[in-house]
Amino acid sequence: MNHQENLTAYLQSFVNELVRNGIKNAVISPGSRSTPIALLMAEHSQMNVHVHVDERSAAFFALGMAKALKEPTVLVCTSGTAAANYFPAIVEAKISRIPLIVLTADRPHELRDVGAPQAIDQVNLYGNQVKWFMEMSPPDAAPEMLRYVKTVSSRAVASAMKEPKGPVHLNMPFREPLIPDFDHIEKYENESRHVEIINGTLTVADEYIKGLAQRLEGMRKGIIVCGEIDNENFSAAILDLAKELNFPILADPLSQLRSIDDPDNLIVDTYDVFLRNDAVKQALAPEVIIRFGSMPVSKPLTLYMKQSEALQIVVDGGAGFRDPNQLTAEMVYCDETLFCRKLAEYAKKNKHNDGKLWKDINEKTKQALSQVANISELSEAKLFHLLAELLPDNSVLFVGNSMPIRDLDTFFHKQRKNISIYANRGANGIDGTVSTALGVGAAKQQPLYLVLGDLTFFHDMNGLIAAKQYNVPITIILINNNGGGIFSFLPQAQHPKHFELLFGTPLDIHFEHIIRMYGGKYHAVEDWDHLKSLCASGEEFGIRLFEIKTNRDENLKEHRQIMTNVSQEIQHFLRDDKK
Amino acid sequence: MNHQENLTAYLQSFVNELVRNGIKNAVISPGSRSTPIALLMAEHSQMNVHVHVDERSAAFFALGMAKALKEPTVLVCTSGTAAANYFPAIVEAKISRIPLIVLTADRPHELRDVGAPQAIDQVNLYGNQVKWFMEMSPPDAAPEMLRYVKTVSSRAVASAMKEPKGPVHLNMPFREPLIPDFDHIEKYENESRHVEIINGTLTVADEYIKGLAQRLEGMRKGIIVCGEIDNENFSAAILDLAKELNFPILADPLSQLRSIDDPDNLIVDTYDVFLRNDAVKQALAPEVIIRFGSMPVSKPLTLYMKQSEALQIVVDGGAGFRDPNQLTAEMVYCDETLFCRKLAEYAKKNKHNDGKLWKDINEKTKQALSQVANISELSEAKLFHLLAELLPDNSVLFVGNSMPIRDLDTFFHKQRKNISIYANRGANGIDGTVSTALGVGAAKQQPLYLVLGDLTFFHDMNGLIAAKQYNVPITIILINNNGGGIFSFLPQAQHPKHFELLFGTPLDIHFEHIIRMYGGKYHAVEDWDHLKSLCASGEEFGIRLFEIKTNRDENLKEHRQIMTNVSQEIQHFLRDDKK
Repeated sequence: MNHQENLTAYLQSFVNELVRNGIKNAVISPGSRSTPIALLMAEHSQMNVHVHVDERSAAFFALGMAKALKEPTVLVCTSGTAAANYFPAIVEAKISRIPLIVLTADRPHELRDVGAPQAIDQVNLYGNQVKWFMEMSPPDAAPEMLRYVKTVSSRAVASAMKEPKGPVHLNMPFREPLIPDFDHIEKYENESRHVEIINGTLTVADEYIKGLAQRLEGMRKGIIVCGEIDNENFSAAILDLAKELNFPILADPLSQLRSIDDPDNLIVDTYDVFLRNDAVKQALAPEVIIRFGSMPVSKPLTLYMKQSEALQIVVDGGAGFRDPNQLTAEMVYCDETLFCRKLAEYAKKNKHNDGKLWKDINEKTKQALSQVANISELSEAKLFHLLAELLPDNSVLFVGNSMPIRDLDTFFHKQRKNISIYANRGANGIDGTVSTALGVGAAKQQPLYLVLGDLTFFHDMNGLIAAKQYNVPITIILINNNGGGIFSFLPQAQHPKHFELLFGTPLDIHFEHIIRMYGGKYHAVEDWDHLKSLCASGEEFGIRLFEIKTNRDENLKEHRQIMTNVSQEIQHFLRDDKK
Repeated sequence: MNHQENLTAYLQSFVNELVRNGIKNAVISPGSRSTPIALLMAEHSQMNVHVHVDERSAAFFALGMAKALKEPTVLVCTSGTAAANYFPAIVEAKISRIPLIVLTADRPHELRDVGAPQAIDQVNLYGNQVKWFMEMSPPDAAPEMLRYVKTVSSRAVASAMKEPKGPVHLNMPFREPLIPDFDHIEKYENESRHVEIINGTLTVADEYIKGLAQRLEGMRKGIIVCGEIDNENFSAAILDLAKELNFPILADPLSQLRSIDDPDNLIVDTYDVFLRNDAVKQALAPEVIIRFGSMPVSKPLTLYMKQSEALQIVVDGGAGFRDPNQLTAEMVYCDETLFCRKLAEYAKKNKHNDGKLWKDINEKTKQALSQVANISELSEAKLFHLLAELLPDNSVLFVGNSMPIRDLDTFFHKQRKNISIYANRGANGIDGTVSTALGVGAAKQQPLYLVLGDLTFFHDMNGLIAAKQYNVPITIILINNNGGGIFSFLPQAQHPKHFELLFGTPLDIHFEHIIRMYGGKYHAVEDWDHLKSLCASGEEFGIRLFEIKTNRDENLKEHRQIMTNVSQEIQHFLRDDKK
């Protein structure tokens, strides 16, 4: 076979095998060295190709698609710094357990470390931040090499999908000329054998579950804590288990449990507020905590668990070690849904433990928080309080890090609409947010709302090009407090010297321009009625940005005031309850 | 000592030692975990602190400063994906041998790999892309620990500056609380011992140089090739050597040799054009090639060297292996200036080898290229031909990768103005260009001109914030051919299927908006007179963007036409010359 035949047969086998393994989406950045793989992907009828010039945004876009579809997205770039731009999204994918298949084109071996243009050391480029790395062979159409490339393709998918899911990296050396024979692609189909990889599921011995069920019977106060989790049928399974145990579920906004049908009122969703109160924490001290998913967003909840004497059990189907408090007594490496079902089977209804006080305090807190609705000025707290009302049913809400995700946790509660909530909560970065949201939006095909702060928006304005090019409608609610609002809540705010320079960091830019550049519509929100009417306008839209200007100092004061008021009301309730 | 005293004494010793080692500039991105080091740097009277929200742009800005100042810039960021955003600039710094000191704040050891927020694995985060990595001790004010931290500080500077220069990475774990005692900083000055590290210089035995001088005497045709190089006094030393040997110097635009005084007319600067002609290549076949610096930009020159039977000698004070052609017979690890001076000392004037034909063809080519001045429409070729006229004396010209640097090589020749030329020519990426240019501009304090294409500009529009915040004046000449113009010159252009999707990649955006967002001035260039008058307007300026719209297909045709015409003229000249 000649060079072009080797190139084509090898890569076509690779791409076909990706497709056979269910891969449907590739995000490609333009480049020369990646030409053969890019062309063959574009040529494949079952591969959706998205092209993105900025590789950093491209990788976050791919991350968003993978997040929403729960299957790997493929990334393709040329050699050099292009590949380095994927790094932030890869780091995020690793920690947040999102499957990605990163394909970097490379110079062939003889052109490495000899000063050839656009040649960097790409072997193990991403170090520990990927789950699996393979330096691939140069293209070769020998039968055993086609078998090899198909096996690597299958292994890449299986490895990315094996719990804990995550990014894998294949580095692909190509020699010139780089054009495959894609005009006669049918010639290169080969029906030879392939390997089917069946990913297993972690389970634990029935004896452990039985023993746990028995121990739980004797406990009067138990709670379940759910952070962000991606496990099929988990919502139903955890509700069943909670009902059986009579344990309330403290549901993080990213657990998706604040948007499900909860007939038995098991979901507690205002703990971020009431667990700031010492008396409440005392009254609600549990004997056992069973925790699932990532660490929850809420700092009061984390502190509450840290101060607790309870038996703490963590269930992790990805076999990690999510325990910054170092208080976990039992770390259970078992598929979470499986665990819930098994335990529910063995558990006996604990009638003493009905979680009534949790429900009452949750209800009381919600009532107390309803005061937020009365704030007349534009306010960050009220925005999140109103979100459930503002957003349509069956929509996607993507939330920026730093303050927005925390405010969401505090002020956005269980409601009847089906609103899927997403964030980049692996490494909690403010980078790549616009792109990740658009990736989710492109995959979900539901109305997409992105709520984020000005620095976060700034960091990934380039991501907007995908909204324009792939016609992904997006409504951006921009909370513009001209700088890093979260720092006002941190100890450095007590030290005004250098504060604005290093932490406040106002950008003083007017974002209307960037929205216009992408052909979007910009609206400066005047008041709450204006925002409501903007959100209600059901027009077909492309990019819309609603800018809400707030003030960092006033926001701090407002948050403190709300917390003080609510805390007092809960305190009254507790006193009355004890009487 | 208490926690705050340990933190302050340790970090203050570190920062003081950086300053003692001559470090003057830090680029800091806002974050919480990096609070102590950021505050102490801001507090230090001899440290210039630049704050940049987007860490990717921040790192390229730092790279630009280091490029211009020839000394390390410090980068400081918080834990998490912030650090991953530095990666593209670090990769570029490694290959292009630019010194950087990267300081990443990290969670302390007990909060790693346990699901703590914003905690990623930062140990060896950048893998082989940095020269030196140290995982640092938690802050500690014991005398031996202060000595340790000062030593690491000195070693970081020395390691970054040791040839080949490059980036180093220190990962710094900090426990809360994170506020140093910067109000009583004088308390923490300590005058204890420190280590002075004296970086050596590579030299080779006199016998080798003497032998080489003897061998060169017998050779009739020799040339010197200079790529990008950063070595003190190199320009003078290479001119002396070339004069002694009677060798012409083929000077890459990044060698800075196209802007020096060249009384003996030794610099050849149109080789990128005339070395496309086979007859010329034959006529100019050398017996020896002595090469310095990076591989030159010019592909015709690279090919010419690849096809040459000459003895090829590469001199590299950084002891790398810049030889993609695999034809180097002698790889000399010696400081380049030292090598030139020693060889010039031993060399005897070779009267047979006056490089006259090189000079004549260079002159003829320049004449032939002057036809470019007659192009009336806006054209990429003519822009670079005109640049020397358009730019003021003592200015900085930063050039984008892909087509602009190639066009510069082809059309921008030796001239009398002092114009320093910069590009990111390590990995040849299109990323970070705006930021790197601004970093150079901030350091050089000379009028800054950035010439780049639309995709390159798009990739780093965020970099513009530095121009606004640090008041770095910049004139951007944007060549907007709405997509990736270079691909029209590559083989994939012959395959129209998928071409626009994967390679043409038009963005279809109007860049006026982004310039307005940063308070800059936008001008759509109408014709050459308009551009000349814009450039001539000597007003005090902030950000100015002159947009030149071109067409990719016509640009391809124009380039081909120019090359055909020039080639014919040179051919005639050669024929006449032989008669």
